[in-house]
Amino acid sequence: MWPKKRIEIIVETPRSRAVTDMLERVGAKGYTVITGVTGRGARGVRDDDHLTDVFRNTMILVVVGEELVETIVAETHRLLEHYAGIVLVSDVSVVRNDHF
Amino acid sequence: MWPKKRIEIIVETPRSRAVTDMLERVGAKGYTVITGVTGRGARGVRDDDHLTDVFRNTMILVVVGEELVETIVAETHRLLEHYAGIVLVSDVSVVRNDHF
Amino acid sequence: MWPKKRIEIIVETPRSRAVTDMLERVGAKGYTVITGVTGRGARGVRDDDHLTDVFRNTMILVVVGEELVETIVAETHRLLEHYAGIVLVSDVSVVRNDHF
Repeated sequence: MWPKKRIEIIVETPRSRAVTDMLERVGAKGYTVITGVTGRGARGVRDDDHLTDVFRNTMILVVVGEELVETIVAETHRLLEHYAGIVLVSDVSVVRNDHF
Repeated sequence: MWPKKRIEIIVETPRSRAVTDMLERVGAKGYTVITGVTGRGARGVRDDDHLTDVFRNTMILVVVGEELVETIVAETHRLLEHYAGIVLVSDVSVVRNDHF
Repeated sequence: MWPKKRIEIIVETPRSRAVTDMLERVGAKGYTVITGVTGRGARGVRDDDHLTDVFRNTMILVVVGEELVETIVAETHRLLEHYAGIVLVSDVSVVRNDHF
């Protein structure tokens, strides 16, 4: 088994395409998109107002090598600057190393 | 990156609202709800009968600081006493600490 | 809390039933199926051609004891030999040990 990083990006649905385009651009070999997601939470840059809302979200799951994590996290935050969204990073193991 | 705890609660859909209400009450800053989930597994308190069933589920994902885990896990189990459901806790890292 | 392994299997939807049948056969006590998933990635055995595609996927989440991981990973790879799919393994903690 190979150690990889699992990155989950939960964004407002209208912004999800910008994220998946970015993932392809930086070289992620694949990703999974889960629709049918709703969220409640702090909303983007208006976070300091503690403004919350329920909204349609999309979850994007991507598994990559350690070397891509920093780029993806930074690019995602840039894309989400004016949108609600969170980025979660965790450890995962995979069997087929060539897929990631 | 900040270490947080990722809690996933998979419950029968009719019980999901009770869980999200509880999450807001105990102070979770946000959560994600995934519908379109089905499950097969041991059913709640009837577990000792090994009764299983396929049913509509909802998955609730919440990321919190360590200090909230015990409360959320205990409250969830109280709410699910007569319902099917599981609670998974794992480690995750986040970038924007103020969102969780 | 009890340490368990979380296995996520993301497969082309037509192949998901074969995976859940296998999970029951090898003794997993329950699993969760998430539909409404799309994916982009390397496609099965044609991976060496770097052929990619967008397709309908299903995500299957199963939590088991360490002793079942090797069997489930091996069986899944056998089932997915000619299909697109990935298998992710990570650590998770649960409260009710008898459910897994």
